[in-house]
Amino acid sequence: MQNEFAVFAGDQHSKARHGRLTTAHGAIDTPAFMPIGTQGSVKGVSPRELRELNAQIILGNTYHLFVRPGLDVIKHFGGLHNFMGWDGPILTDSGGYQIFSLAKLSKITEEGVEFQNHIDGTRAFISPEIALEIQAALGSNVAMVLDECVPYPCDYDYAAKSAELTVRWAKRFKEAVEAGVSPANSKIAVDMPAATARQLVFGIVQGATFPDLRSESAQAIVELDFDGYAIGGVSVGEPEQEMMRAVESAEPFLPANKPRYAMGLGTPPQLLEMIARGMDMFDCVLPTRLARNGTAFTAIGTLNLKNAEFAPDKRPIEENCACEACRGFSRGYIRHLVKAEEILGLRLITLHNLHFYLNLMKRARSEIKNGTFDRFRKSFVTEYKTREAIEQS
Amino acid sequence: MQNEFAVFAGDQHSKARHGRLTTAHGAIDTPAFMPIGTQGSVKGVSPRELRELNAQIILGNTYHLFVRPGLDVIKHFGGLHNFMGWDGPILTDSGGYQIFSLAKLSKITEEGVEFQNHIDGTRAFISPEIALEIQAALGSNVAMVLDECVPYPCDYDYAAKSAELTVRWAKRFKEAVEAGVSPANSKIAVDMPAATARQLVFGIVQGATFPDLRSESAQAIVELDFDGYAIGGVSVGEPEQEMMRAVESAEPFLPANKPRYAMGLGTPPQLLEMIARGMDMFDCVLPTRLARNGTAFTAIGTLNLKNAEFAPDKRPIEENCACEACRGFSRGYIRHLVKAEEILGLRLITLHNLHFYLNLMKRARSEIKNGTFDRFRKSFVTEYKTREAIEQS
Repeated sequence: MQNEFAVFAGDQHSKARHGRLTTAHGAIDTPAFMPIGTQGSVKGVSPRELRELNAQIILGNTYHLFVRPGLDVIKHFGGLHNFMGWDGPILTDSGGYQIFSLAKLSKITEEGVEFQNHIDGTRAFISPEIALEIQAALGSNVAMVLDECVPYPCDYDYAAKSAELTVRWAKRFKEAVEAGVSPANSKIAVDMPAATARQLVFGIVQGATFPDLRSESAQAIVELDFDGYAIGGVSVGEPEQEMMRAVESAEPFLPANKPRYAMGLGTPPQLLEMIARGMDMFDCVLPTRLARNGTAFTAIGTLNLKNAEFAPDKRPIEENCACEACRGFSRGYIRHLVKAEEILGLRLITLHNLHFYLNLMKRARSEIKNGTFDRFRKSFVTEYKTREAIEQS
Repeated sequence: MQNEFAVFAGDQHSKARHGRLTTAHGAIDTPAFMPIGTQGSVKGVSPRELRELNAQIILGNTYHLFVRPGLDVIKHFGGLHNFMGWDGPILTDSGGYQIFSLAKLSKITEEGVEFQNHIDGTRAFISPEIALEIQAALGSNVAMVLDECVPYPCDYDYAAKSAELTVRWAKRFKEAVEAGVSPANSKIAVDMPAATARQLVFGIVQGATFPDLRSESAQAIVELDFDGYAIGGVSVGEPEQEMMRAVESAEPFLPANKPRYAMGLGTPPQLLEMIARGMDMFDCVLPTRLARNGTAFTAIGTLNLKNAEFAPDKRPIEENCACEACRGFSRGYIRHLVKAEEILGLRLITLHNLHFYLNLMKRARSEIKNGTFDRFRKSFVTEYKTREAIEQS
C-alpha cells in the first residue's frame, strides 16, 4: 500500500519518534492523542472547541454509533464527519472491544460475533467484512480490523487461539479492502464524499500478556501489510509492567515506516513510556471521564476539585496553562460548579484535561525534535509520580 | 435618586418602549431578557458564550448562592462578577422567591423570614436589611427588595396583608440603602471593587391577582422611590389573563422614567404582550430548562427534538437562525445527542433558545424604534399560536 506516514525525527536514547500521518481530512502530527467521540460527540465538548484545542484527530466508536443512531441515519447524513460537524480526521474502532465488554455476547465463531446490544437488546452479527462495511459507511479516515479482545487474566491456550483467530479475521478484513470495500465504493455507503475515498486500515496485534504470542501476532499481522499497526488488548486490568512488556514484545516486528497505535491508554506517564517504546498514537477516556468526576490533570498529578481545600483557591487548575479554563476560572469557582452539579464545571475540566493530554503530545514532539525527549520523559514521570506518592502517603 | 434609565422611543399603539439602563458594568438595552445564572452559572453556558450571544445582563439567585458556595466564598473572590468570570451587569433577586418555593419555611414575622435551606437543612434568617447586605456582598448591579411571594390561588385578605408587609419591608430595605449599605460600604462586603459602588435597587409590586391590591401596592412602592420597579408574584400558576391584568393594574402607577421588570416569565408571546403593556425587563427559566429537556423555540412554536420525525432532518433547528447551533448542526444530529444523553445536545439547544429569546428582544427594540412594534407583536403571536394549535389538534 501507498505510505501516508513519514517519520521526521527519532530519539537517540529511546524508540521515540516524531512523524506525520496524512489523511483525506488532514494531517496528524505524531505522537498524537485522539479524544474519544464515543457517540458522535467528544463528551462535553463541541467541534469548535476541539479545533481550538488543536485536536488533530478524534476517535469514533463504531459499536455505539451502530447501535444509536444506526448506520442508516449516519449514511443519510453523508457519513460521520458531516453528521457531527467535524471536518478533521476520524479513526473508528472496529466495534469489537465494546461487543466484548458492553454487549450481551451470544457466540464467537470463525465467521464472526453474534451479540445483543446493551441499549435495547437487538441481536446483531458482525464479521470482519461487516466491520469494514460499517466503517466504510461511517466514512472514517482510519478503520480498524475486527479483533477479539481477551480479558485479563487469560490462560495461555485461549490467548493463543484467540490471537490466531484475530489474524485470520485481519486477513479477511484486508481481502475485503482489496475487493474494493471503501467509503467511496461500499455496498452500504453509496453516497460518501470523494474526500474519504482512501480509508486507511490498521491491523491489531493481540496475544494478551504473553511475549511470544505478542511477537507471533505482530509478525503475522505485519505480513498482511496494513497502513498502520495497533497494539490491542492492553490496559485491560493487567499490571503496568505487563502492559509495557506486551508492547515491547510486539514493537520490534512493526515496520518503522508505519504508524503504531497503543489502544485505550493511559495516564500521562504511561503515554510518555509508550512513546519511548516506539508508539505514535493514543486514545484514552481518562481526560474526559475523570473530568466528569471533578478530577483534573496537572504536571504533578491529578487534583480532585471536589476537595474542600479548593473552595477558597483563586489559582487556575494549573499555573501558566493556556487552556480556556485556566485562562478564565479559579479552582474555587470550578469546585463550586462541580459541587453544585453545574454542567459548566465538567465542561471546564474536560477542556483543561484534553488540553493537558494534547499539549503533552505537542511537548513530546518538540522534545523528540530537540533530541531531549528522554530527559523530558524521566523528569516528567518523576514529578508526576512524586505527587501521587505524596497524596497516597 | 439619580436616574440611570433613559427612554429613547415609544410605540404609538401600545405602551411598548425602548430604553437603556446604565450600570457600573455596562448598559442594558430594553426591552431586555436576562438569562438566569441560578448557582453562579447560566446552566450549560460559559461566560464567553453569553458574550457571543450578546447577553447584556444576567440574573443571579441570591438564595442559591447564599446556600452554596456561601457568602464567605463569594466575598473572598471579590464578588459574584469575579467569582464567575462575568464582567457584564448582574441583577440579583432578594432570595425571597426561593425561600418561599424551595426552602422549608419556618416562620414569617414582621421582622423577616426564618427558613431551613433545601440542601442541608441549615437554619437561617433573612430580613430586608440582611437581603440588602447579602446582595451588597454579591456586588450585583441591581438588587431587589425582599418581598413575600404568595402562591396562586391566594385569598384576598391574605394577599392584602402580604402586600402591605412587602411595602413595609421595601421601606426598611430603602432605609438600609440610605443608611449606606452598598457593595462599596457594606458590613459584609468590605473589599468590593469600586466599580460596583452604586448598586441600583428595584422595588417589587405584589397584590396577587387582585387589581385593586396591585394598584395600591404599586402606588405605595413608587412612593418609596426606587431605581426601578418589578411586578412580582406573576407567572405562579394563574391563568394568563390574570397575569396580564395584574400587570395592567400596576403599570399606570409606575413612573415612565424608571425601568419596569416583569419577574419570572414567560413564553415568547407573553414577553411581547408584556412589552406592549409597558414592561422593560424579563427573566425566565424556559429557554434553559426546556433545552435540557430537548425542546427548542422557533418562531412558529416549540419543537420537541426527541421526536422520531427529526432523526433524518438535515435542517437546522430554525432556518436562517444565526446561532452557533443552527450554523453548524442539524436537527437530526441534535436529536441523536439528546437521545444519547450527550451534553453537547443540551448545550446546543440552550444556545439556540437563549439566542431566540435575546434576539426576540432585539427585534422588539428595533420594531419599537421603527414604529412597527404593534404589527410585529400581532403577527408573531398569531404565527406562534397557530403552530401550537396545530400540535395540540
